[in-house]
Amino acid sequence: MSLATAMSDVASDIDRRLDHFLTVPDDPRGDLYRAMRHAAIGGGKRLRPLLVFATARLFAVDRDCAGRVATAIECIHVYSLIHDDLPAMDNDDMRRGKPTVHKVYGEATAILAGDCLHALAFEILSDPLTHADPFVRSELVLDLARAAGPTGMAGGQALDLEAEKSSFDLPTVTRLQAMKTGALIACSVEAGAILGKVPPEGRTGLRGYARDVGLAFQIVDDILDVEGDEAAVGKALRKDGEAGKETFLSLLGLDRARAQAEMLVDQAIEHLQHFGAEADLLREIARFTLERDR
Amino acid sequence: MSLATAMSDVASDIDRRLDHFLTVPDDPRGDLYRAMRHAAIGGGKRLRPLLVFATARLFAVDRDCAGRVATAIECIHVYSLIHDDLPAMDNDDMRRGKPTVHKVYGEATAILAGDCLHALAFEILSDPLTHADPFVRSELVLDLARAAGPTGMAGGQALDLEAEKSSFDLPTVTRLQAMKTGALIACSVEAGAILGKVPPEGRTGLRGYARDVGLAFQIVDDILDVEGDEAAVGKALRKDGEAGKETFLSLLGLDRARAQAEMLVDQAIEHLQHFGAEADLLREIARFTLERDR
Repeated sequence: MSLATAMSDVASDIDRRLDHFLTVPDDPRGDLYRAMRHAAIGGGKRLRPLLVFATARLFAVDRDCAGRVATAIECIHVYSLIHDDLPAMDNDDMRRGKPTVHKVYGEATAILAGDCLHALAFEILSDPLTHADPFVRSELVLDLARAAGPTGMAGGQALDLEAEKSSFDLPTVTRLQAMKTGALIACSVEAGAILGKVPPEGRTGLRGYARDVGLAFQIVDDILDVEGDEAAVGKALRKDGEAGKETFLSLLGLDRARAQAEMLVDQAIEHLQHFGAEADLLREIARFTLERDR
Repeated sequence: MSLATAMSDVASDIDRRLDHFLTVPDDPRGDLYRAMRHAAIGGGKRLRPLLVFATARLFAVDRDCAGRVATAIECIHVYSLIHDDLPAMDNDDMRRGKPTVHKVYGEATAILAGDCLHALAFEILSDPLTHADPFVRSELVLDLARAAGPTGMAGGQALDLEAEKSSFDLPTVTRLQAMKTGALIACSVEAGAILGKVPPEGRTGLRGYARDVGLAFQIVDDILDVEGDEAAVGKALRKDGEAGKETFLSLLGLDRARAQAEMLVDQAIEHLQHFGAEADLLREIARFTLERDR
């Protein structure tokens, strides 16, 4: 299966599942649900769901299980985008080529829509429909909660708020990004292995893959932020520079940043050496992080 | 054990646990953790943790398990207070007798502190330290996620936002409050039974108790909002009336509202008829919801 086909299959699968979970109720919560749908359905690269599916197939995991877990992780990602875009945070008007949730539904509904997607993620994961084995469900929840919380994504966003005030060095920017975007990417890769009942000691290669892909992805994000086209990326660019934030690009320069991303992708693929052709999709995803224009 | 002793024991237990979970790290996330500590430690009635402990003792549940679950549920409650107090939501300056989180740490950190406590709740519940049986952990997560999300607390808050624009009738206000405050109170009571491995069909009485106590609690909240003393309650009062929101008090009048709360408390105690003296703490908590001044 080509990467393009896999991406479009995953995108339809996730949209269909979100459409089901976010059916608008016939009561005054309509705007809350419409706000969640606006942010969650029909947009984005769905990189995290794709990673869940690509790892799950290594271990012959049931596709419906993988789809539910992928949807839960995407709910966390989308909630974080809604909250990060708020006026008090990054104050963004555009996201995925559309106005941000608070621009359409107001700040209060945007905050609540994020909170609801956050809770919904854990509801989906802990539902027996996601996996018959409660140990698997419980491990998925623990992994995702850590990836989302103060030692993961939200902690990384807190570091990012400080980045405007301080002048972070390369190790600090690396740690910030490993938390802010890396933790959820790592969780997506690991989730496929948890579903496949691979014990933690059998996940070392996949963990290394996820760490390197996550970092490469962020370096390219920083490059796109400076070199990219706003229409293609679908959001306002060049904000980090204006805010005086250090990024991989500002610290390394364009040539070294690109070389570093390429090296990380090679290294990520190297971590998959014990897998055969069944890991080709993971290899293609790694290469895609370099080639993408959005 | 008297209610006063139980309340003060639970308050110290929860404070001690939160102090441990929220140890301030030696990095730029200091403000994030200080914001969480400001909101979470040393305040509040700890009604939800008290309900977890009071139900857990019916089934001889290990006290440390109950304490961890109680802390997780309180994390959800505190996160909801932080987000509800934000300028875009209820715009409150005081909470539990202190300035609200966003007044001290700014809006961005307040949003993130709420998000972190939200994730932390699920991290605590799904940790094997909370209960050796993964089925119990997974059921606790599912119950709490539903109580927190769009069909529970956050959904109730969305209805509450609409309450300023519409003129809700008694059934709608009852449903709003059953979601906004009732769902998490019910989850606290049910958690004790889940820890005690009581099957769902054995929890009917406790569910009835929780529903009635939750509603009585909210009616008294509405009465305190009009009759209460701001210094004792620790937050700004009389805001619902100013916003033109219908409440139990505005719809029923003071005498009928108070009579309704008393009837609900009698009914809540009636639901405990199959329990002996071991349920006396739950009975006292029900009566306390009427007598409290904060």
